[in-house]
Amino acid sequence: MATALNVEAAGESMMGLIRELYPICRSITGDGVRETLRIVSQRIPLEVHEVATGTPVFDWTVPKEWNVRDAWVKDARGEKVIDFRKSNLHLVGYSTPIHRKVSREELFAHLHTLPDRPRAIPYRNSFYSENWGFCLEHDALERLREPEYEVCIDSSLTDGHLTYGEVLIAGELPDEVFVWTHLCHPSLCNDNLSGIALSTELARSLLGTKPRHTHRFVFAPATIGAITWLAVNEPVARRMVAGLVLAGVGDAGQPHYIRSRRGDALVDRAFLATLEGTRRPYGQLDFSPYGYDQRQFCSPGFDLPVGCLMRTPNGRYPEYHTSGDDLAFVGPAHLADSLAIVTSALAVVDGNRSYLNLNPKCEPQLGRRGLYEAIGGRGCESDTELALLWVLNFSDGRHSLLDIAERSKIAFPSVQKAAHALEACGLLRASDERGPSS
Amino acid sequence: MATALNVEAAGESMMGLIRELYPICRSITGDGVRETLRIVSQRIPLEVHEVATGTPVFDWTVPKEWNVRDAWVKDARGEKVIDFRKSNLHLVGYSTPIHRKVSREELFAHLHTLPDRPRAIPYRNSFYSENWGFCLEHDALERLREPEYEVCIDSSLTDGHLTYGEVLIAGELPDEVFVWTHLCHPSLCNDNLSGIALSTELARSLLGTKPRHTHRFVFAPATIGAITWLAVNEPVARRMVAGLVLAGVGDAGQPHYIRSRRGDALVDRAFLATLEGTRRPYGQLDFSPYGYDQRQFCSPGFDLPVGCLMRTPNGRYPEYHTSGDDLAFVGPAHLADSLAIVTSALAVVDGNRSYLNLNPKCEPQLGRRGLYEAIGGRGCESDTELALLWVLNFSDGRHSLLDIAERSKIAFPSVQKAAHALEACGLLRASDERGPSS
Amino acid sequence: MATALNVEAAGESMMGLIRELYPICRSITGDGVRETLRIVSQRIPLEVHEVATGTPVFDWTVPKEWNVRDAWVKDARGEKVIDFRKSNLHLVGYSTPIHRKVSREELFAHLHTLPDRPRAIPYRNSFYSENWGFCLEHDALERLREPEYEVCIDSSLTDGHLTYGEVLIAGELPDEVFVWTHLCHPSLCNDNLSGIALSTELARSLLGTKPRHTHRFVFAPATIGAITWLAVNEPVARRMVAGLVLAGVGDAGQPHYIRSRRGDALVDRAFLATLEGTRRPYGQLDFSPYGYDQRQFCSPGFDLPVGCLMRTPNGRYPEYHTSGDDLAFVGPAHLADSLAIVTSALAVVDGNRSYLNLNPKCEPQLGRRGLYEAIGGRGCESDTELALLWVLNFSDGRHSLLDIAERSKIAFPSVQKAAHALEACGLLRASDERGPSS
Repeated sequence: MATALNVEAAGESMMGLIRELYPICRSITGDGVRETLRIVSQRIPLEVHEVATGTPVFDWTVPKEWNVRDAWVKDARGEKVIDFRKSNLHLVGYSTPIHRKVSREELFAHLHTLPDRPRAIPYRNSFYSENWGFCLEHDALERLREPEYEVCIDSSLTDGHLTYGEVLIAGELPDEVFVWTHLCHPSLCNDNLSGIALSTELARSLLGTKPRHTHRFVFAPATIGAITWLAVNEPVARRMVAGLVLAGVGDAGQPHYIRSRRGDALVDRAFLATLEGTRRPYGQLDFSPYGYDQRQFCSPGFDLPVGCLMRTPNGRYPEYHTSGDDLAFVGPAHLADSLAIVTSALAVVDGNRSYLNLNPKCEPQLGRRGLYEAIGGRGCESDTELALLWVLNFSDGRHSLLDIAERSKIAFPSVQKAAHALEACGLLRASDERGPSS
Repeated sequence: MATALNVEAAGESMMGLIRELYPICRSITGDGVRETLRIVSQRIPLEVHEVATGTPVFDWTVPKEWNVRDAWVKDARGEKVIDFRKSNLHLVGYSTPIHRKVSREELFAHLHTLPDRPRAIPYRNSFYSENWGFCLEHDALERLREPEYEVCIDSSLTDGHLTYGEVLIAGELPDEVFVWTHLCHPSLCNDNLSGIALSTELARSLLGTKPRHTHRFVFAPATIGAITWLAVNEPVARRMVAGLVLAGVGDAGQPHYIRSRRGDALVDRAFLATLEGTRRPYGQLDFSPYGYDQRQFCSPGFDLPVGCLMRTPNGRYPEYHTSGDDLAFVGPAHLADSLAIVTSALAVVDGNRSYLNLNPKCEPQLGRRGLYEAIGGRGCESDTELALLWVLNFSDGRHSLLDIAERSKIAFPSVQKAAHALEACGLLRASDERGPSS
Repeated sequence: MATALNVEAAGESMMGLIRELYPICRSITGDGVRETLRIVSQRIPLEVHEVATGTPVFDWTVPKEWNVRDAWVKDARGEKVIDFRKSNLHLVGYSTPIHRKVSREELFAHLHTLPDRPRAIPYRNSFYSENWGFCLEHDALERLREPEYEVCIDSSLTDGHLTYGEVLIAGELPDEVFVWTHLCHPSLCNDNLSGIALSTELARSLLGTKPRHTHRFVFAPATIGAITWLAVNEPVARRMVAGLVLAGVGDAGQPHYIRSRRGDALVDRAFLATLEGTRRPYGQLDFSPYGYDQRQFCSPGFDLPVGCLMRTPNGRYPEYHTSGDDLAFVGPAHLADSLAIVTSALAVVDGNRSYLNLNPKCEPQLGRRGLYEAIGGRGCESDTELALLWVLNFSDGRHSLLDIAERSKIAFPSVQKAAHALEACGLLRASDERGPSS
């Protein structure tokens, strides 16, 4: 496990990446995505993929690429009353180009505000219905009293590409652990620069190691990106033994884990054992077909073992999808805490194996192997001794180390250590050739 | 669902039928049963069946038919101290004829009272042991101080028939939904004129409709009636996909549902989902071999999926099987509430189907089919959209609409509506030929 | 069930045996074990087995036999400051012989005390590591201030035997119910003279009876004794339908039952139904590979259906494995209560059978067989009638009497009595040839 110093350094490193990515205007396509991937690739060796507009992907089609240079609304005096350059949230995503005077009434039909949170700019988009619009503070809208405004959106919707990035860390096995992060949101820190930062930091920590499973990290737009990735990578997806969607992992709330559709996949059990082991409050949610991209990975034609880690669940904090989700809303300690959870849980996923007790009739004599204390009668074994006894008793070909950790309530790393000690003295051998996939 | 006005009208209609049936002296056979069925048949087209005395029915035999013209006990002055014409509960059911003077001691050996409820007349019978007797208020018994009384029971026990009535509403499928009501009790309103009234009203509401399943309503005596019906109708019983015993559905207590012996039959899940959906308190009980006629339908040689709806469970209210179960003990609002529950639950039974998502890999693009709103980012889907996503995700050949409603906690009618919308645009097709039977 | 008088007599009888066995110095081998078995065999006809030193038993070897004649520590004035004759707990079990002067420092390296309980002598042993040592009160240790002491342990560690005793009570079936008690502890009353006494009393109560299952009682040393017994008796162990380890059954605490590794074996269900039926507080624990000899019987190569009955769990009372576990720590009433629980639970194990309802379609007419009251309408059946209905309904070839008792919450003896009554009138027949083994 990371030391305290490393944790702090990791938190600051993730926060630094978030600060760097925050100003960029991202969407589901376009140069903002490419710039984001370029900055991430300064930390980990990303392979960037481009899928052309018009490519059919299951029931969908890769959309036109959207880019925007500027956007504003001016009043009669030529003053910008809404200015994209101040916040890229002001512009509805995928707004079509326009430059003309419009009546106050027409303008208002294209404005989006949050009357309940009058000082926040909402995040809105119109990916699949050609339209234009602006988002602004409700207080600002109430100041727009002139009969006519000049509207300019200098955007383009053209044939181009959908862009995503991947990094693959080869393991001993071809079976894959999969970490997915969406990167299509503009200046929103928790959703989902936090996910990008955590995924980047985690991938970086695995570089140069040789885990048991191959680990794949993908950074791609939500929904259409997940659908596109699955359409292009179906054989890869079938090799997935565990998958995780990372989103909203930087806020101050408690960690929340959403189970995969299967509900008891290895990834689910690994995260819940890890969260339980923190002895701090956490939430768990059953799979719902509404949520982040697990809804695509868990569609019935795939039903992949993909869970999701968040802190406060999406939609349950007022800053969600508004300008309130800014640099102050996330923090390095929360990011580091989320990273520690993911690291521990994926260590369970990677380290879970099944062993066979080679001396299954009665206990073996641990004392003569130096694994048991000499003076008896005290009536309480040490945790190390208990872990040995649990591993021996349940290494019967039907229980994995995680099963044993769950049943004994001993932390997974202790159970794993006991198994290694028993294997070293020939009392146990691994009975899984490829590792349990769920 | 019924409108408020209809509910009120239905409640009054049921109460009216109860008032009409209340004075009749019913038993497990005899003219009281026939008169009851005649009155019910003014509302729904009953087919009346007669099974002859002596017919063997499994371990039992159809008993002699019992009819009674009058019954009384007179004192020395010739005054009636017990009078059947004042309440048919005064006479023990199936009392044999007698007309002679008896000592106070002999009379008392044939009297039944409730010392704990001294002003209530108990309901007693002696169907399978030839005997005679009277039931009376304990207070009245204490006034009987003369040494001798004249007893008259002008009854007959003769070869005749056991009578029951049925109405069949043909559905698209031969598989049957079965509603059973016992009609053997004399002047007791909740047990079970309430059941007769609810069953009649429900059957009437289905007349002229074409439900998916065929619906069969039976009005018959308890125990021997159920045994006789099963002996005569065994092939019919085997077509039952869901069955319900209705009894005690008019009192002010909370609704209670008793699960079938199987415990998780479709009818059980439909009633419990419906009761849960009322967001009002209710009770649920596991099957017990003691209770109403479900004990016959759920005997191990049949093990039919038959549950029971009551309000306050039998035996748990002091008026049970006494003269206190009178017209004031039941009410139109309680009857209407029970009717609404049964109507909703049987709509689940009839409407539960399994569908197959024809686009199972990733979500289909609902927006271009007009099923999803155009502006994204709000972060909360409408209930309609959520129901669509749930139905799509779980229509995998292993989940029925009721499964989806239970898992999503969305009301069954909304789930059903979503399935119909998706079927209409070709994204779903029904995958069950006959509908799930449990 | 035993009458109150018998219970009292049984409690006193067990207490008498404990008093007789208390002074003997027992260990895992040696004459103390033989003397203990000789005294037990005055009550029940024990067969004594001897297994030679050096015999390989799975991963272990039968150790040398240890006997001790005397042991003490004397100060400069020749006064015994530690004296084995005052308490055999003073000597570490399996201490090697020694007779010489040792420095205070050397002596202290061989002394064991409980600083937290300064007036108690701990129980310690060194079975598998040749060593010597004394146990004493921590207060006494603090009085040892001289620079040198004379140490004498007149013990022998020689080739000999491991000794255990058995009594077999033949039943109708070769399948065995197994009761195991460890007898290796020196002067400790609850752990485990209480187990020896209960097992002896229970075996005595079965002498001359013909239970359905054969019952085997074994009195043997813990751990190495269990391993040796299993190595020698593997085919016998495979005939076990239910097994029980008895230990610590005489203290004032609540009864606690530890489930077998299987968790839902017949013995587990029988004990838990019995404890539940006492309507007094009790504890239940899941199997753990740490505990009494069930850890050997439940090792994965055997996985036998063996549970454990204790009162206060081992290690959870301060007197555990100290001189505080003396004659005052156990009592005849607690012993008798434990005996009553074991007797009832093993009666469930022995009496559990499956029956087939020979009249499975509808209820049979119990009234004409004298099993049901004549006057109907009361609305509450007697417990006897309810038990008849439950047995009839669930004797479908898939439920045993214990299943029915658990589901109906009717006490097992009442369910069993109902089955016998129904069998007697031809409505039921036993459907198991050998009895369910779990």
